[in-house]
Amino acid sequence: MTFDPTTFAPTHFLWEFADGVATITLNRPERKNPLTFDSYDELRDAFHALDKCRAVKAVVVTGAGGNFCSGGDVHEIIGPLTKMNERGLLDFTHMTGDLVRAMRSCPQPIVAAVEGVCAGAGAIIAMASDLRIAAPSAKTAFLFVRVGLSGADMGACAILPRIIGQGRAAELLFTGRNMTADEGFAWGFWNRLSENVLADAQSLGRELARGPSIAHAVTKKQLDAEWHVSIEQAIEMEARAQAHCMQTRDFHRAYEAFAAKRMPEFQGD
Amino acid sequence: MTFDPTTFAPTHFLWEFADGVATITLNRPERKNPLTFDSYDELRDAFHALDKCRAVKAVVVTGAGGNFCSGGDVHEIIGPLTKMNERGLLDFTHMTGDLVRAMRSCPQPIVAAVEGVCAGAGAIIAMASDLRIAAPSAKTAFLFVRVGLSGADMGACAILPRIIGQGRAAELLFTGRNMTADEGFAWGFWNRLSENVLADAQSLGRELARGPSIAHAVTKKQLDAEWHVSIEQAIEMEARAQAHCMQTRDFHRAYEAFAAKRMPEFQGD
Amino acid sequence: MTFDPTTFAPTHFLWEFADGVATITLNRPERKNPLTFDSYDELRDAFHALDKCRAVKAVVVTGAGGNFCSGGDVHEIIGPLTKMNERGLLDFTHMTGDLVRAMRSCPQPIVAAVEGVCAGAGAIIAMASDLRIAAPSAKTAFLFVRVGLSGADMGACAILPRIIGQGRAAELLFTGRNMTADEGFAWGFWNRLSENVLADAQSLGRELARGPSIAHAVTKKQLDAEWHVSIEQAIEMEARAQAHCMQTRDFHRAYEAFAAKRMPEFQGD
Repeated sequence: MTFDPTTFAPTHFLWEFADGVATITLNRPERKNPLTFDSYDELRDAFHALDKCRAVKAVVVTGAGGNFCSGGDVHEIIGPLTKMNERGLLDFTHMTGDLVRAMRSCPQPIVAAVEGVCAGAGAIIAMASDLRIAAPSAKTAFLFVRVGLSGADMGACAILPRIIGQGRAAELLFTGRNMTADEGFAWGFWNRLSENVLADAQSLGRELARGPSIAHAVTKKQLDAEWHVSIEQAIEMEARAQAHCMQTRDFHRAYEAFAAKRMPEFQGD
Repeated sequence: MTFDPTTFAPTHFLWEFADGVATITLNRPERKNPLTFDSYDELRDAFHALDKCRAVKAVVVTGAGGNFCSGGDVHEIIGPLTKMNERGLLDFTHMTGDLVRAMRSCPQPIVAAVEGVCAGAGAIIAMASDLRIAAPSAKTAFLFVRVGLSGADMGACAILPRIIGQGRAAELLFTGRNMTADEGFAWGFWNRLSENVLADAQSLGRELARGPSIAHAVTKKQLDAEWHVSIEQAIEMEARAQAHCMQTRDFHRAYEAFAAKRMPEFQGD
Repeated sequence: MTFDPTTFAPTHFLWEFADGVATITLNRPERKNPLTFDSYDELRDAFHALDKCRAVKAVVVTGAGGNFCSGGDVHEIIGPLTKMNERGLLDFTHMTGDLVRAMRSCPQPIVAAVEGVCAGAGAIIAMASDLRIAAPSAKTAFLFVRVGLSGADMGACAILPRIIGQGRAAELLFTGRNMTADEGFAWGFWNRLSENVLADAQSLGRELARGPSIAHAVTKKQLDAEWHVSIEQAIEMEARAQAHCMQTRDFHRAYEAFAAKRMPEFQGD
């Protein structure tokens, strides 16, 4: 069965699809949109489904009611975890890690639109997106330490330092303190501050969706793949990846548009 | 023989221990606290000893008399090095590298409290700490080039770019120039500027010491271990590391405290 | 045949050599200094030749007429590429990648002096330099996406995030937007803003040329080599590299100068 973004109706979050942009809205606003075992599961499956779904060209992730996400629900997740054996715990940490893996491996660029509370697994979802827009109200906390856990959650010790640097990441992960919106912008966590995060993120999503999708997928993949290889290897990987992009019709469209002095209309092939 | 932080009495630096926080003070203030062969040795041994010392939960490193550390003593280190053969030189560079290795491999988070001169191996010690607080007077120079050496000293070419980015690290290492306190804060080298660096660093040290020590050790280890692996591998490493933390009593303490609406008191087990 | 920097007379760019500093000027100012197949080729060969040329101790790269470089010429490069088969495309992407490889593997530090347009392969040449000085007029765009290509061009997905962080690099590569001079300075792309970029870059080049060349070559090499190895491995690499530098005469010269209370005069051996 193929995934149809026009009819997809998830149980644990909202889904809209327009102009090539899928918008995922975490939607338990009375609790600041915490995650549960079920919502983790369904989110991960949705990002996995996007792997093969060429109609969706960009994704926006946001939260309802003025907050992004308060992380794993204390009652529905933390409580049960304290009763699990190692096998159960590993199943859980593998599932949460799989959500990040699915976000990083789907070909679509993901834009996080963040207001208010952005904590724990919520901060991770923002971090695991490709681009991030925040409201001045955004308070982001990698607060695992406050519940007795390490900062090594869902890839944070790998991904956060690459975004904001090792020293700042260490502070956030060791102390669990809030990063203000201004700090996050100065540090390169947020790409932009906005009073209208959702509208801005969807506008950016549409801009990305109008772009060359094969090339975007390559950009996304290579940005992750090249941190742990030599510069030599990275250059060789890019020579092959870019030669591949030069065989897409979108590359030809761009040249034809340039020659005709008009804007290119990319089709994603 | 086990290391006892309450009775440890080093020869080449001061040692205080209170509230789980060990404070190391470089203490040759008349010379701005330079390092010698002997102080390198003793510092390295102290950090190695911390590996097995569960009573020490955080470390503060500072310098006496308004300066942090002026680096390797010109008369006591540079002079003798010019007379050594390759074997002797390698013994020396391995010993200095071992100090950084010991700082990175001990489980305790290390907070550097820096005033005034922070140069050469002094800058390295600040860099190799986990968190860094500076006074506005702090002048930090990776000045190896000024004595005819490369920036490849004690891990600087690996660690400094991860903290402040490749372009700024290149400038500091190629020119040996001072980084001002304001630059260092803007670039993410300093986590905080303070007029009372030692008091602030010890306060932060106590906060860390009250935290979940097993989890802190995992955070520290993973922050170093995940730069050179793939995102996939990092997520897998974290799934295992965090599942381990979920089996600590501190994780259970946090949940119980939350349920009882009080602050958790972590015990480090 | 050995490369002689005093008589080298390239066809596709200007070459000056003075005080140990070679200045390369891209020089088709009426078109904002675009690159062609031939200029790529000749630039790459020049940087390769520098490998063995000890007389050149630093390099400045700039553009004539108020702009740095507009990237690959649309008519002379993009057009022909749309007609090539995979073999031809790979030959091209390998050649462009070779330019970056040659810039990274030559032992001399390279300073980019950038005014005005700095786009596409021009932005890459700035990025692939070791140090970067920009005029307030500098507009830097990794605009590959605008011609239907990925950001994975000539090492950009590896090198750019190491300089400005993953989030900002993602934005520039996914959107192709201009980075202003102020942004580039705040983000660590530019080491300095200046109204006189060429004079400043040459002055910095002369300062570097007066430095210890063997040590500079080690700094440059290790800054690239240590991103994808463990901290342990990096420290070991540096122990060996620095012990090697301690056997240079420049190291001894520095100590002798210090003892005699004068500035060292490095000779590069």
